[in-house]
Amino acid sequence: MRGAGLLRLGAQFVGALLLAIVAVLCLALFARTLQVRWRPPVPEVVHGGEKDRYLAQLDLVHPESAPNFVVILFDDLGWGDLSVQGNRLIETPRIDEAASQGVRFTQFYSSSGACTPSRASLLTGRYPPRAGASLHVFFPDDSWVGFARRLAGVPNELPADEILLPEVLRAAGYATGMVGKWHLGGLDGYRPLSRGFDDYFGVLWSNDMAPLHLYRGDEVVQEDLRPRNGFGERDEESPLGPGGVEQARLTQRYTDEAVRFLEEHQEDPFFLYVAHTFPHVPLYPSKRQEGRSAAGRYGDVVADLDRSTGEILDALERLGLTERTLVLITSDNGADYGGSPGALRGRKGQILEGGQRVPLIARWPGTVQPGGVVESMAMNIDFFPTLLALAGLPLPEDRMIDGRDLRAVLESGATTPHDLLYYFSPAESLPGAVRDDRFKLLLETGDWGRSRAHLSRLDIDAEAHDLRDKHPQVAERLMESLTQKRLEFESNPRGWRSGRSGPAAFASASTDGLLAAP
Amino acid sequence: MRGAGLLRLGAQFVGALLLAIVAVLCLALFARTLQVRWRPPVPEVVHGGEKDRYLAQLDLVHPESAPNFVVILFDDLGWGDLSVQGNRLIETPRIDEAASQGVRFTQFYSSSGACTPSRASLLTGRYPPRAGASLHVFFPDDSWVGFARRLAGVPNELPADEILLPEVLRAAGYATGMVGKWHLGGLDGYRPLSRGFDDYFGVLWSNDMAPLHLYRGDEVVQEDLRPRNGFGERDEESPLGPGGVEQARLTQRYTDEAVRFLEEHQEDPFFLYVAHTFPHVPLYPSKRQEGRSAAGRYGDVVADLDRSTGEILDALERLGLTERTLVLITSDNGADYGGSPGALRGRKGQILEGGQRVPLIARWPGTVQPGGVVESMAMNIDFFPTLLALAGLPLPEDRMIDGRDLRAVLESGATTPHDLLYYFSPAESLPGAVRDDRFKLLLETGDWGRSRAHLSRLDIDAEAHDLRDKHPQVAERLMESLTQKRLEFESNPRGWRSGRSGPAAFASASTDGLLAAP
Repeated sequence: MRGAGLLRLGAQFVGALLLAIVAVLCLALFARTLQVRWRPPVPEVVHGGEKDRYLAQLDLVHPESAPNFVVILFDDLGWGDLSVQGNRLIETPRIDEAASQGVRFTQFYSSSGACTPSRASLLTGRYPPRAGASLHVFFPDDSWVGFARRLAGVPNELPADEILLPEVLRAAGYATGMVGKWHLGGLDGYRPLSRGFDDYFGVLWSNDMAPLHLYRGDEVVQEDLRPRNGFGERDEESPLGPGGVEQARLTQRYTDEAVRFLEEHQEDPFFLYVAHTFPHVPLYPSKRQEGRSAAGRYGDVVADLDRSTGEILDALERLGLTERTLVLITSDNGADYGGSPGALRGRKGQILEGGQRVPLIARWPGTVQPGGVVESMAMNIDFFPTLLALAGLPLPEDRMIDGRDLRAVLESGATTPHDLLYYFSPAESLPGAVRDDRFKLLLETGDWGRSRAHLSRLDIDAEAHDLRDKHPQVAERLMESLTQKRLEFESNPRGWRSGRSGPAAFASASTDGLLAAP
Repeated sequence: MRGAGLLRLGAQFVGALLLAIVAVLCLALFARTLQVRWRPPVPEVVHGGEKDRYLAQLDLVHPESAPNFVVILFDDLGWGDLSVQGNRLIETPRIDEAASQGVRFTQFYSSSGACTPSRASLLTGRYPPRAGASLHVFFPDDSWVGFARRLAGVPNELPADEILLPEVLRAAGYATGMVGKWHLGGLDGYRPLSRGFDDYFGVLWSNDMAPLHLYRGDEVVQEDLRPRNGFGERDEESPLGPGGVEQARLTQRYTDEAVRFLEEHQEDPFFLYVAHTFPHVPLYPSKRQEGRSAAGRYGDVVADLDRSTGEILDALERLGLTERTLVLITSDNGADYGGSPGALRGRKGQILEGGQRVPLIARWPGTVQPGGVVESMAMNIDFFPTLLALAGLPLPEDRMIDGRDLRAVLESGATTPHDLLYYFSPAESLPGAVRDDRFKLLLETGDWGRSRAHLSRLDIDAEAHDLRDKHPQVAERLMESLTQKRLEFESNPRGWRSGRSGPAAFASASTDGLLAAP
C-alpha cells in the first residue's frame, strides 16, 4: 500500500504546515494587539573591523578628475517596457535618446527577481545571499510580516558589516545622495543616512507596503496614517486614504530632489542614486500624464519616469556635467503582471530570463561611444567594482566581490569579463541557474510546479526547449559549476575571505535529484 | 478583530478542503483495492431522438464531387514549435512546404488549453461545455482519477447525444477513419467506432496515462501490462516497461495506418483524422530521428511529426488526390513546458494566448490560394460547420453550433465570420475571456494567483498591459458580452435550442467582483 502511505504522509505534512502557519500568524497578531515591539536581533556584525579599516585607508579622490555617477533605477520595469526595447504601446523618448547617446546592453541582469536582493547586489557588488538579502524582501518592522521574519531569524536589513557603494565613495570624498525607495532596512542605523548617503529623500518600502512614511534624511516628513487592518497595518483598500503619501506626486518630487542635489553638488564629485517607486504596483501616474499613454496607467507611470529621466539629464547638461558623468539607467527586476517581459519567458520573482534580464543604458558622452548595442553579459553586481575602478579606488579584500569591472566593455565594447553568471531566486539562498555566453542551465523554475530542469540556448531560443540530451557535455560542465557554487554559498554564505565564516556545508546544497532525467 | 476572523475562516476552509480530498482519495483507493468496477452513470441522453432524426434525413453526397478531408492534429504543439512559425532550433520542412502550398492562420485558436475539451470542440463545432467536456480531461476508467470523476458526477466521456463530425460525414456516405489519440471516452459505446469512425487505430488516452492499450477498432491489439502502483494503475517510472506500448514507434505506425486508409479509400469521399500522440510528454522520438534535432528530444519528436505529415501528403499526391483534398494541420492546445509559445504569453492550460493560440495550416491546391497568411480569427469549432458546408450538408438545428463556416476565408481570404471568440479554461464551465478582432478581455488568468483581469490589444501587445482604464467603452462592451455568454452557459450548458435544457441560472455566472478595479 505505497499509495496509502504516501497519502498519510502528505496529509500529515500539509496539516502540520497549516498548523505552523496559523500558529505564527496568531502569535504575530497577538503581539501586534499587545503593541509588542520586538526589535532585536539585527544581523550579527562579523567583519565590522575589516570594514572600518578598509574605509579608513581609502585615499581621497581628486575633485577635478573623479567622474560623477548617476544611477537611475526603476522598480519592476520589464525587459519590454521601453520603446527602445520594442514596446509598441509605451513611448519613452528621453530614455531612448539616452540610449542613442550611449550604449544599450542586451544581456544585462539584475541579480534577483525581487527588489531587496537586487538592490543589495547593486550597492555591494555581491550576490544577494552575501548580504543576507536572499529570502524574499524586507518588510516594515511595524508589520506582521516584518515581525514574523525577525521571529524566524530571517534578516530584515542589510548587515552593518556589508560595505556599500555610497559608503566607499563618501569615504573617498564623494558627495552621496539618494532619492526614492530604499528597501534595505528600516531600523535606526540601517536607513540610508547610516549606510553612506549624505542626503536622502524618499520612502523606505515598496508602495504596496505599510506604513509608507516619507523621509527626508532620518526624519519622517509625511507620516502614513492610513487605517490599519486586523493583520497589522496594511489596508490595501486605502492606498491613498487620509494621511497616506500622495503617490501620484512621488516621481516628480524625487526628480526635483535629484535636480536639487545636482545643483548643490555641481562642484563636487558626486554619486546620485535615484531609486524610483514605479512602475511597481499600485500605479499612480502624475495628474498631467494620467490617461495619456496608449498603454493605460502602466504606460502613464512609465511616461512619468521617462520625463523624470529627461529632467535629470537636462539638469546635467545645464550644469555642464554631461561629459563628466556616467549615467546608468536600469531596473531592479523583470516585469511584474502589468508590465512586459518582451519575448522573454518568466516574470518578476523567477530565475527565468523574464525575471532577471532587464534594460541597461550606460551614457557618458566623450567616454562611452554613442549608439552602440552591447551583447556582453553583465549584472548589477558589476556596478560596485566598475564605479570603484572609475574612481581609482581599490576593492575590499576581506570578502568576495562577485561583480567585475566593466570599464573595458563600456569604453571599447570588450567581451564580458564574466565566464559565468549565477541566478538567485528570491525564495532560495543558493543559486538556481547559471549561464555562460551562450547556454543556461536551470535547476527548476517552480513555474506552476510543472517545469523541470533544463538547458537552453539563450542566443536563439527563449528558454523553450530543454537541450540537456543534445549537449550533455555542456550540461555537465554547467552543472558542475552550479554545484560548486551552491556548495560555496552553503559553506560560506556571506562570502568572507578570512576570519569567521558561516556554518559548515550540509547535504542540501547537493543538486542530486534536482536535475531530473529528461 | 477582522484579521482573526479571516484567519479562522481560512484555516477552517483549508482544513475542510483537505479532509474532503483525503476522503475522496481514500474511498477511491478502497474501491480499487476491492476491485470495485463502478461504471455507470454515463452522461444522460437528452437529445438522442433529435440526433437520430438529423442523421437519418441527410442526403448522400455525390462521390465524384464531394471533397476529401484530412485533419492532422498534434498534441501540445505550441505556437512557436514550427520553423514556419519562427522556431530557430526545430526544422519542419514538410509542414513549412504545406504552408507555402496553402494558407497559414496567425489568429487561430483551439477552444481550450487542454486535450479533451479541445478535441470535443473540433469534432462537434461547439464550445467545450456544450459537450460535457469542460472540466480538465477525461481519464482512463480503470484509474483512480477516472473513478473519482465518476464518483463526483463529472463526465468522463462525450455524451451519446452529441453529434460528431465523423457521424455526420459517415451518414452522408463518407469513409471515416481515425488514427491516434482519442481522449473522448473509453467505455463501450464511447470509443471511436461507436462515434462515427469506420476505422480506428491508436491509443484512447494521453501517453502519460495508464493503462495505455493500443486499439485496432474496438479490439486491444497491444495491452498495457505495466506494473500498477498503489494509487491505481499508473507507474510513471516504467512508461516503457514490459508490456507497455512502444511509444517510439507510435508516430510511424499512425502514419502507416493513415496511408493505408488513404489507399483503401482513394475512390470514396473520405474523412481522415490523424490525432498524434506527440509532442505530449513523455517524449519518445523514433530511432532514426533520436539525437538529430538541434532542439533535443522535443525537436526530435516534432521532426518525426513533420516527416509523418510529409508521408501523408506524398500519399495523397501519389494517389492523385491532392486537388480533391482539404488538409488541415493544427494542434490541440498551446505549448506545454518543453515546447515554445513563441512570443505569446501563457502556456497549455491557460486562457492566455499561449494556452490556446495554435498554428493552423490549410492546404487545398486549386481551391485555396497558395502562400497566403490569414489574419482572420478562427477556432477549431469552425471545422465542423466548414466541412459540412463543403460537403453540402445542413447543420443540426436542435442545438447551438458555435463554429462558423470558413469557406470564404479559405477561398478568398475574407474577414472572419466571428464577431467574438470566447476562451474556456479547462478548470471552468464558463468562458473566462473574450476577444474581438483587436481587443481581448480576460477575467483572471490564475497565473501564479497574482494576475488580474485585463484588457489587451492583441494586434500590437502580447497581453502585457491592462488597458481597461484607457478604453473603458471597449472593456464595458466586451464585459457585457462575456457576462451574457456566461449566463447563457449557466442556464443552458449543453446549448439546446429546444426541449429540455440544463438547470436554471444561478448567481455564480455573475462577473461581479471577478473584474476588479485596476
